[in-house]
Amino acid sequence: MKADLDRLMLDRELDAFVVTGGEEFNTARYYLSNGANITHGSIFKVRDKPPLLVCNRMELEEAAKSGLDVMTDVELGYYDRLKEAESDGLQATVLHWADVFKRLGLEAGRVGLYGTWQVNRTIALYQLLCAELKSYEFVTEAKANLIEAAMLTKDAEEIRRLKSVARRTNEVMEIAWNFIAELCAEGEFLLDEDERRVTIGAVKDLVRRELMARGLEDTNMIFAQGRDAGFPHSRGEAEMPLQIGQAIVFDLFPRELGGGYHHDMTRTWCIGYAPPEVQKAYDTVMEAFDISVEAFGINKPTHLAQEAAQDHFEAAGHRTTRSDPRAMDGYIHTLGHGVGIDIHEAPSISHLNQDDVFQIGNVLTIEPGLYYPERGYGVRIEDLFVVEEGGELVSLTPFRKDLVIPLSGDE
Amino acid sequence: MKADLDRLMLDRELDAFVVTGGEEFNTARYYLSNGANITHGSIFKVRDKPPLLVCNRMELEEAAKSGLDVMTDVELGYYDRLKEAESDGLQATVLHWADVFKRLGLEAGRVGLYGTWQVNRTIALYQLLCAELKSYEFVTEAKANLIEAAMLTKDAEEIRRLKSVARRTNEVMEIAWNFIAELCAEGEFLLDEDERRVTIGAVKDLVRRELMARGLEDTNMIFAQGRDAGFPHSRGEAEMPLQIGQAIVFDLFPRELGGGYHHDMTRTWCIGYAPPEVQKAYDTVMEAFDISVEAFGINKPTHLAQEAAQDHFEAAGHRTTRSDPRAMDGYIHTLGHGVGIDIHEAPSISHLNQDDVFQIGNVLTIEPGLYYPERGYGVRIEDLFVVEEGGELVSLTPFRKDLVIPLSGDE
Repeated sequence: MKADLDRLMLDRELDAFVVTGGEEFNTARYYLSNGANITHGSIFKVRDKPPLLVCNRMELEEAAKSGLDVMTDVELGYYDRLKEAESDGLQATVLHWADVFKRLGLEAGRVGLYGTWQVNRTIALYQLLCAELKSYEFVTEAKANLIEAAMLTKDAEEIRRLKSVARRTNEVMEIAWNFIAELCAEGEFLLDEDERRVTIGAVKDLVRRELMARGLEDTNMIFAQGRDAGFPHSRGEAEMPLQIGQAIVFDLFPRELGGGYHHDMTRTWCIGYAPPEVQKAYDTVMEAFDISVEAFGINKPTHLAQEAAQDHFEAAGHRTTRSDPRAMDGYIHTLGHGVGIDIHEAPSISHLNQDDVFQIGNVLTIEPGLYYPERGYGVRIEDLFVVEEGGELVSLTPFRKDLVIPLSGDE
Repeated sequence: MKADLDRLMLDRELDAFVVTGGEEFNTARYYLSNGANITHGSIFKVRDKPPLLVCNRMELEEAAKSGLDVMTDVELGYYDRLKEAESDGLQATVLHWADVFKRLGLEAGRVGLYGTWQVNRTIALYQLLCAELKSYEFVTEAKANLIEAAMLTKDAEEIRRLKSVARRTNEVMEIAWNFIAELCAEGEFLLDEDERRVTIGAVKDLVRRELMARGLEDTNMIFAQGRDAGFPHSRGEAEMPLQIGQAIVFDLFPRELGGGYHHDMTRTWCIGYAPPEVQKAYDTVMEAFDISVEAFGINKPTHLAQEAAQDHFEAAGHRTTRSDPRAMDGYIHTLGHGVGIDIHEAPSISHLNQDDVFQIGNVLTIEPGLYYPERGYGVRIEDLFVVEEGGELVSLTPFRKDLVIPLSGDE
């Protein structure tokens, strides 16, 4: 968590770091600026000193809401440097950073670089920093970097927000269930009050509206039916009408409006009835889910949970990416991942990750699945969990795990 | 536009380029993949050959919608390379890229790198590429890069989408106007049907809902009243009640749902009446707007339009960032910018930019403003324009430019 930053910097022998970027959503900047609503600005932090947020003059008011020390680029002489650099923004930035480092008492040292930015511009800046600021060493980290390591465990305020987003997301999932349950079947299709076929697009529109009414925003949900459900990341076709007896993978992972903390949950539904093969796959996935939760333990390597799920799937006759790294069907993804400001954070629960262990403060998904596009279905079940202070793994996703949505209109 | 890519590559002596990144919204990937709904995957393009989209196996179905040549990382042996690299993802990526380059017939050459990614990971990848793939030169561009240069002019399909987003955004602006016009004043506040004070948050909620109903999403609109309006990028306080006679800067810049093309427009409103000082500033800004539009000309440097606006503001006694680069009030930003998949694209209309000229296919804003937070107001007027085939500058923002919203409830 954020309180660990100085310690993590010491572990990594970092004297300072800079978080920078452009107008892209910038996870590290959001995290360190406590969600300040800014689209420019860099954060400079020297170890054991408070961070300084350097903002554009136009964003001073929003930057101040970060609670950090804030100065504008104007105050720090950026525009003088820009003139000196004959309007070459990159050159001016490097001179400006040197000014900021000196102001913060950093004359030399190892400096980490974080944030989100255009690839081309990042490399150009890095080249110029190395060429011009020779008393500093600009360092990278191959695996989990400093910011990711801090974000790996959530503090009490982050968990409060994650629980709030979880509660609201579960409400919306229930609204979608109820909406479908009240439809009437005509042949294989579902009709609304006006006797029109209900499409995936109509369900997604409802879900987006209900999320927004709760201060959340969709970040491209998956509502994929039949063959599409067999591709883990097919989003589903808006024009496709809902059909009875088809597997629907509904993966909902909204975040706080305008950027912020996520929830992440998946249910697999069959409207009206489930074909036996889908029911069997569903039961296998539910068993894998329970086995994975059982495999959890504080300080236990996360890959053991993935391998427990893989053991189960393989014993049931399914391919996995462990038994066949090139597998295109069966169980072909990781068991789970951390969730926070990013939808995919550390830890990773993968047989290829030998480094991560379960820790107090982790907020992570468990989401086994089976995918058979050529047989016209896929199944995934996903809850989000928090590892509580006492070391218990607690689900934030209480919504029912029923495969079949019975049609009340048929009763 | 996209059709210019091979020519622009030749100009820049690029033999190939790669667009890469993580799960962040990736403008270059969206652009080149024709909006494919993918969160992983890189695009490889050798000059004068079609691009190849290399996707994650889970996203094959979505990637195929790009219309590009698509291969999965599985097919291309990424997982074999991952094993070879002992699960070091970065090392595996570099080996994998070498495989892809060879498959595309690129044995050596100058390679541009684009996309959006984490800063730290970008630099680590760049270092490894330089160290391991010595027959290639990985190059950066200081100013407008290849992708930005292509995006500088929009093709017919892009302009069709931009016009559609414009039409819908203007509709929503009108709905907001009408909503406010129908309120009743009680003292300095505005009351809704339930006689509750209407807040900025209520207006924003309405706007977000109406955008969504039209397939658009808000990207953090500005609705800033009074002193907040005096800071160009203050978003406005949700809890603040609307007040009569206060300047409100309403800058609305939504995009197609899930990422896509934007509109960008600003109106300044005073509910009920305008104080004389705000009216005077408004008139000055409107004059600057008209002067800026007059300054437009095909192949004319864009900075001349900014300087025409600055001449006008300075003559009227206002500071500008030309007369004082450190100015914190007056006219303190650029005159405009291109708009597309990103809200701020090339060209830039700035006195500090001597490179850009107006071209057919540009889609750009003109948005002069005046900011006096200590006097409790700010004013900005912004239309989005397209430079049509015949060279005319045509506004996509027909919505009325009236300062005062008369209260019909008072009539």
